Amino acid sequence: MQNGIKSLFCDKQEEECGVFGTFAPRQNAAEIAFSGLLALQHRGQESAGIAVSEGNTVHIHKDMGLVTQVFSKERLASLKGHIASGHVRYSTTGSSLLANAQPLLVRYRQGYLALSHNGNLLNAMNIREELEQKGHLFQTSIDSEVIASLIAQLDKGDVEKAIEGCMDRIKGSYSLVITTGDKLFGVRDPNGFRPLSIGKLPEGGYVLASETCGLDAVGAEFVDDVQPGEIVRIDARGLSRRKACKQGEKALCVFEFIYFARPDSDIDSSNVHLVRRRFGAQLAREHPVEADLIVPVPDSGISAAMGYAHEAGMTYSEGLIKNRYIGRTFIQPNQAMRESSIKIKLNPIRKVLAGKKVVVIDDSIVRGTTSGKIVRMLREAGAREVHMRITSPPVRYPCHFGIDTQTSAELIGHSHTPEEISKVIGADSLNYLSMEGMYKASNLDIDEHCSACFDGDYPLPVDTVEHNKLALE
Amino acid sequence: MQNGIKSLFCDKQEEECGVFGTFAPRQNAAEIAFSGLLALQHRGQESAGIAVSEGNTVHIHKDMGLVTQVFSKERLASLKGHIASGHVRYSTTGSSLLANAQPLLVRYRQGYLALSHNGNLLNAMNIREELEQKGHLFQTSIDSEVIASLIAQLDKGDVEKAIEGCMDRIKGSYSLVITTGDKLFGVRDPNGFRPLSIGKLPEGGYVLASETCGLDAVGAEFVDDVQPGEIVRIDARGLSRRKACKQGEKALCVFEFIYFARPDSDIDSSNVHLVRRRFGAQLAREHPVEADLIVPVPDSGISAAMGYAHEAGMTYSEGLIKNRYIGRTFIQPNQAMRESSIKIKLNPIRKVLAGKKVVVIDDSIVRGTTSGKIVRMLREAGAREVHMRITSPPVRYPCHFGIDTQTSAELIGHSHTPEEISKVIGADSLNYLSMEGMYKASNLDIDEHCSACFDGDYPLPVDTVEHNKLALE
Amino acid sequence: MQNGIKSLFCDKQEEECGVFGTFAPRQNAAEIAFSGLLALQHRGQESAGIAVSEGNTVHIHKDMGLVTQVFSKERLASLKGHIASGHVRYSTTGSSLLANAQPLLVRYRQGYLALSHNGNLLNAMNIREELEQKGHLFQTSIDSEVIASLIAQLDKGDVEKAIEGCMDRIKGSYSLVITTGDKLFGVRDPNGFRPLSIGKLPEGGYVLASETCGLDAVGAEFVDDVQPGEIVRIDARGLSRRKACKQGEKALCVFEFIYFARPDSDIDSSNVHLVRRRFGAQLAREHPVEADLIVPVPDSGISAAMGYAHEAGMTYSEGLIKNRYIGRTFIQPNQAMRESSIKIKLNPIRKVLAGKKVVVIDDSIVRGTTSGKIVRMLREAGAREVHMRITSPPVRYPCHFGIDTQTSAELIGHSHTPEEISKVIGADSLNYLSMEGMYKASNLDIDEHCSACFDGDYPLPVDTVEHNKLALE
Amino acid sequence: MQNGIKSLFCDKQEEECGVFGTFAPRQNAAEIAFSGLLALQHRGQESAGIAVSEGNTVHIHKDMGLVTQVFSKERLASLKGHIASGHVRYSTTGSSLLANAQPLLVRYRQGYLALSHNGNLLNAMNIREELEQKGHLFQTSIDSEVIASLIAQLDKGDVEKAIEGCMDRIKGSYSLVITTGDKLFGVRDPNGFRPLSIGKLPEGGYVLASETCGLDAVGAEFVDDVQPGEIVRIDARGLSRRKACKQGEKALCVFEFIYFARPDSDIDSSNVHLVRRRFGAQLAREHPVEADLIVPVPDSGISAAMGYAHEAGMTYSEGLIKNRYIGRTFIQPNQAMRESSIKIKLNPIRKVLAGKKVVVIDDSIVRGTTSGKIVRMLREAGAREVHMRITSPPVRYPCHFGIDTQTSAELIGHSHTPEEISKVIGADSLNYLSMEGMYKASNLDIDEHCSACFDGDYPLPVDTVEHNKLALE
Repeated sequence: MQNGIKSLFCDKQEEECGVFGTFAPRQNAAEIAFSGLLALQHRGQESAGIAVSEGNTVHIHKDMGLVTQVFSKERLASLKGHIASGHVRYSTTGSSLLANAQPLLVRYRQGYLALSHNGNLLNAMNIREELEQKGHLFQTSIDSEVIASLIAQLDKGDVEKAIEGCMDRIKGSYSLVITTGDKLFGVRDPNGFRPLSIGKLPEGGYVLASETCGLDAVGAEFVDDVQPGEIVRIDARGLSRRKACKQGEKALCVFEFIYFARPDSDIDSSNVHLVRRRFGAQLAREHPVEADLIVPVPDSGISAAMGYAHEAGMTYSEGLIKNRYIGRTFIQPNQAMRESSIKIKLNPIRKVLAGKKVVVIDDSIVRGTTSGKIVRMLREAGAREVHMRITSPPVRYPCHFGIDTQTSAELIGHSHTPEEISKVIGADSLNYLSMEGMYKASNLDIDEHCSACFDGDYPLPVDTVEHNKLALE
Repeated sequence: MQNGIKSLFCDKQEEECGVFGTFAPRQNAAEIAFSGLLALQHRGQESAGIAVSEGNTVHIHKDMGLVTQVFSKERLASLKGHIASGHVRYSTTGSSLLANAQPLLVRYRQGYLALSHNGNLLNAMNIREELEQKGHLFQTSIDSEVIASLIAQLDKGDVEKAIEGCMDRIKGSYSLVITTGDKLFGVRDPNGFRPLSIGKLPEGGYVLASETCGLDAVGAEFVDDVQPGEIVRIDARGLSRRKACKQGEKALCVFEFIYFARPDSDIDSSNVHLVRRRFGAQLAREHPVEADLIVPVPDSGISAAMGYAHEAGMTYSEGLIKNRYIGRTFIQPNQAMRESSIKIKLNPIRKVLAGKKVVVIDDSIVRGTTSGKIVRMLREAGAREVHMRITSPPVRYPCHFGIDTQTSAELIGHSHTPEEISKVIGADSLNYLSMEGMYKASNLDIDEHCSACFDGDYPLPVDTVEHNKLALE
Repeated sequence: MQNGIKSLFCDKQEEECGVFGTFAPRQNAAEIAFSGLLALQHRGQESAGIAVSEGNTVHIHKDMGLVTQVFSKERLASLKGHIASGHVRYSTTGSSLLANAQPLLVRYRQGYLALSHNGNLLNAMNIREELEQKGHLFQTSIDSEVIASLIAQLDKGDVEKAIEGCMDRIKGSYSLVITTGDKLFGVRDPNGFRPLSIGKLPEGGYVLASETCGLDAVGAEFVDDVQPGEIVRIDARGLSRRKACKQGEKALCVFEFIYFARPDSDIDSSNVHLVRRRFGAQLAREHPVEADLIVPVPDSGISAAMGYAHEAGMTYSEGLIKNRYIGRTFIQPNQAMRESSIKIKLNPIRKVLAGKKVVVIDDSIVRGTTSGKIVRMLREAGAREVHMRITSPPVRYPCHFGIDTQTSAELIGHSHTPEEISKVIGADSLNYLSMEGMYKASNLDIDEHCSACFDGDYPLPVDTVEHNKLALE
Repeated sequence: MQNGIKSLFCDKQEEECGVFGTFAPRQNAAEIAFSGLLALQHRGQESAGIAVSEGNTVHIHKDMGLVTQVFSKERLASLKGHIASGHVRYSTTGSSLLANAQPLLVRYRQGYLALSHNGNLLNAMNIREELEQKGHLFQTSIDSEVIASLIAQLDKGDVEKAIEGCMDRIKGSYSLVITTGDKLFGVRDPNGFRPLSIGKLPEGGYVLASETCGLDAVGAEFVDDVQPGEIVRIDARGLSRRKACKQGEKALCVFEFIYFARPDSDIDSSNVHLVRRRFGAQLAREHPVEADLIVPVPDSGISAAMGYAHEAGMTYSEGLIKNRYIGRTFIQPNQAMRESSIKIKLNPIRKVLAGKKVVVIDDSIVRGTTSGKIVRMLREAGAREVHMRITSPPVRYPCHFGIDTQTSAELIGHSHTPEEISKVIGADSLNYLSMEGMYKASNLDIDEHCSACFDGDYPLPVDTVEHNKLALE
């Protein structure tokens, strides 16, 4: 538990996470959560945690690392109970804090609750300051502590009502899994920024998971997505659902389809792989190019590259091979090696690329540095031409709803046109998928998704977004 | 962080601990705290922690284990700042919880504070429930969180005043080290149950430590003990002290002299080794016995055994050798080995004991099981007679002020006379030091010490002691 | 270092491994080896090791785990020298022995040498017994110790000559990287069973690597493959090569192309990805099927599935998604979970598969159990028909040259016809690539490859293969 | 396993170690060895290991660290068998090598053997070179590998005979515990430099241990010491003993009594505590001094200080308190702290020492630096006079038989008279026990002990001692 005050109290949690919950009568909830979190591991590799409960007894274990590193067989065996709340957290450099790991387990007048959160609140600091003014204290920098504090304040004996009251206060994105001694709750914010699905276990009981791949991993049958603004309660009497606040403009993060989610997941009923394929096909229609090969940047570009190649009637091929054993945190012993770290992660197949005109498909460009390295790598491998095609529009605005993006100034798409970016990265051409085409091709409803990182049209007013970092310096 | 609800929220902190603090301008506070905690390690081997601060920046690291295990050179180097709060925690079986490790670092409206606590509150649960009724939540089971919550509530801009207000509310034993971004506080409860000393660093600044051996370890010169009911504040302007509440009946725990403290420490100006020696001498006067050898149970019986032998003009000798490499938590692979675990910890010297009448000196008897094993071990080694002499009166009442004792029912001194106990443990004779003799011989003032575990005369009313464990089941 | 006598002395090393070496004047050999081994990690995840040397000084570090787990920044920094020998070892269940990790560092009359070995000797036990009869002892169960013992015996001052003499004695497969205080050797057995490539470093010096992806990772330019029966010596005078024994029948393991090697590697000048694509195309020609989708079993089936789809003019699609975070050794808490472990590793995309006739492409079938689970998984995901196509002939004979295959009895291809296997695994049809077609399509010369696992035609007589396991029971 | 060639192959094993063995039919040998090694932990804290065997099955586990750190409950449970060989190794700075940990497990033509060694060979390098000339190789730098190699060479079917043959070749000090699949051997060199005792288990079978405290820890009854030149064999037929070579001049290391052994151990029938007491008494007779207090340097000076005080009729007192939680390897974050590290290990009791004339009793002086710090510490604590008395003669010659002493040049006793040393360390007076007095008082026979470090009269010719370190540079 190494903390700096800046990281502990100031850095907003603008990261992706995965949440999982289960109410599994006569079953081992920890084992189910373990399998479910394994499937959600791509949503967060920094820390993992599971809290299990049963009546007055609750056990929690959480630590830095992958799910398989955090949970030994012995640990799992010691977590007895039939209700579980689980969490995986994204790895950001530097501020890897055990204190910020989830679930957050708290005790208050009505008992205890364990809370797992995916998302980012816009007004956490305001509520926090308000609670601090009343004399409350905080021990972490995570929004989840604010949510738990509000629930604790509002709960006069009906936790569901307290959760509802909390939803009236908090603004932003949140998919929550909350467990008490006899209940499991799933909560999704009124805009439905982050996904959350419900599954039914074959031997009785239910699970909640950020993505349907988490349901599949435990053999659960898909029931429905938790709807925006909805509270799902699962207890001994079964599943009950209700709209807890009036739904806002539906605004599922479209980047879930572009990059975050696993291809085998369905989000709000659309399959991620198929959506990506359609992005690629549309990209081929919008920005065709005479070339010999369509090559994806693995893994996120694969589905779209297939769609592009199929639509264009061109040859799809692997051309860059990803090292499967390098996590996000591998060491780079010295500066020279850091420079060449991309070579360790990706290696071109010379015999495939030599002399060829190549179209390389990637999901997005944030700062442009990696794209430049990839173009250079392809040229050094003998590619005659390198045309980059991006399966989404230019990222031009920061996200305030749960993704750890840069400030506008760091986003190359904010300050440069595609033509300029093409020059910066050294490509023969660079084109992005149009916003219109992206939605049209994929059958995703533009009115039900958040595309603010592309067009700055935030579903919630963000002029009030707290400048927390400044405020504390 | 493995927690059970029972251990997390219910088990009272009836353990010894060690606290350390430093305000060391232009010095590395973490290194000073590291050395200081090493010297206090005997007060707690379960977990260790250090929080360092400097203006808006605070860093904390704490983990399960010994000081040398928790702090690597790299860890220490990363803890930059000139103010530090440190803590070591006693190892109790089972409930070893990282969540309960200290210091406790919290943020509230006035900034942050890090708190290290040695002692036990009588009304923590009452305050806690009161705060919970107001909507506060808790994340640990330690009293320290209650103290921090009160301070956060009371602090309107003057943290010292808030600490003072907190002292008005909390009842029980507490020696506290509290740090903020620019101040170090030392606080001792009105009865002065637990020790706390002030030292002056050779290169400027001050330290606070549970025992003077912690001052010695960092080369600090002893200044004074923090007085009962006193708040000591150390900041850029130097040291300032004031009585924060009217002093209660002074009630330093006499067991600090009997067992807890290191012999080289002075507590409230009395040296522990010398006090123990006098206990032994008095014991010789009260309960002489014709014998060949005076043998201590190491290590706590050593000083007193010397005093007994010297007074009686008898031969002092090592007769039981302690294994120096066995911590409190060593594994005992199976039942048979557990039975014989005392053999692994202590081994008699047969050639010293064979055919001899032996007086064995121990500090106290709690349940009597270990004493019985020691008597048997001495007889098996050939001792012709085994007379046990205890350097304190019979322990007959549980402690409510920071020692992890049993309930009355488990205290053999509660239900048995010395003669009966002598039979139970198989000794030829068993005698205890008298309360009167203990104080008279040692020049400790009986009116300034808590001897409640011997006579049940608690310095604070304990009929209101919370029955937390029951309350939660 | 946990050993059983059976595993320590009896289990033959029938596993894949990766070797790497470098002679890098004025450079940090350990860092180069680290990057190279990262790229070879797919050849072995059980243990990793690097020995660096320079004159009379040699340092070695090896441990169980992935390259990134075994080597911290500090470890690498402590391995000073410009010559390195590195190794990664395959993870087999149960017998994970640190004692068997490589490189093997030994001292003998001429100094020391560090040896890394990929392959398997046929007569290791014979030589071992012979050496034992002369009074030698052994401390590991690896063939490498036999090789080192022979070299030590034969080296009268010219280590290269001793290596040559050793090659006259040992039979089987071996690609070796051997380092001394001033030399780096690369050695490949007369049949060239296992690959080994030479690269030139941009800043001077050379590297050796099992696959060319290891050269790419350190920015080395491909020079040549070490030829069968050749010894390559690299020292201060540069690179020198010579045939050390008459070449046998060239017999590169064709499974390197089918399964082991990384697609971006070239082996003996053929690119692995392209060869696999051609396998797939030929499979389409040999065993066409009316279907809607061509789906690979990731990752090894991907290249071939592309080739199949392209040749057949059919739609290639991802249909099974692999969990990228599950290593070979993840825990399966209980029996029920073990049963469903394939679900945690692979998940079908229902929306892609539902109602479709699917051709699933895999590289090989060993026992058939996994294939059966995959077929079932595809059907449960809604596939109307499941046709399995295998990009190699049936595996019917055990390997004696470095692959950890089962005995004949365990190979389903040994006892069952493809039609029977198809029924066992529940497929609508099952077909294998023909041996003839495999070689013809890929332009690999059948006379230069070992296909013994398919046809039992071992390049070296194996009737004398030692029955080590029996011999020791 | 981090090795440098210098440490791996050159540094002689001039360290103390502890060995333990058991043949325990129908019992768990690993658990017995675990308890035994715990009791011998003071003889080595660097590494620990246990090999258990039963017929064709042998298991070994060894690692760096204390016995309790190396062996978890799970590890012990996995070591099944009724014969065990165990070892603890002394911690020397820098060259902490897992490769050098023991027992050494080897396989050779007759099967396998596991060997644990305490001592140091004089001609290991000669034999090693001879074996290397024959083509043998070595993988460690420990003498034990030379011993095992010789046994492997000589064993034509009778391992006991081979051990006997080995004893004819090796010169130096060795107490060995050797296990095979059905036998346990205890071996002591012809001079009996290092101790080795035999005990009988209450439930059948035997144990061997470096010291009798190891017998006590497992409840074994002392049978006898292994005699110099003797081989003790324990197998299903029971215990058998025979003189394997003609006994040399008996030369038990007298430093076992002075410093190494635990006070509760008997070595060759003399109790260590009592011998030390007599050393102290004799020292009082030889070098009386008018003083107020006799204070030991804990722990090794304790027994002797009691003897001194008793003989002189003076007051024995604790005056220096040792931190019980600081191992030999604790970190000292920076130079300033290293300087003061003695303060962290030892703390004076000011109230005991202030104004007093103090006699401080220590066991020996090697380089004199620590003695100087202790004298200074006592003075700073207020001692008016500090007289140092050493319970052995000046150490003037290096040990070649198993103790990690300095070269003559580093031994302050080699170049300085006691008077000079007294000045160097700043004492008011310094006196050593005379050699004659040491033996006379203790009833130890001077002709049966090695006192070469005092008088240079080595029991074996050491002019032929190998200058290994030079030879390799």
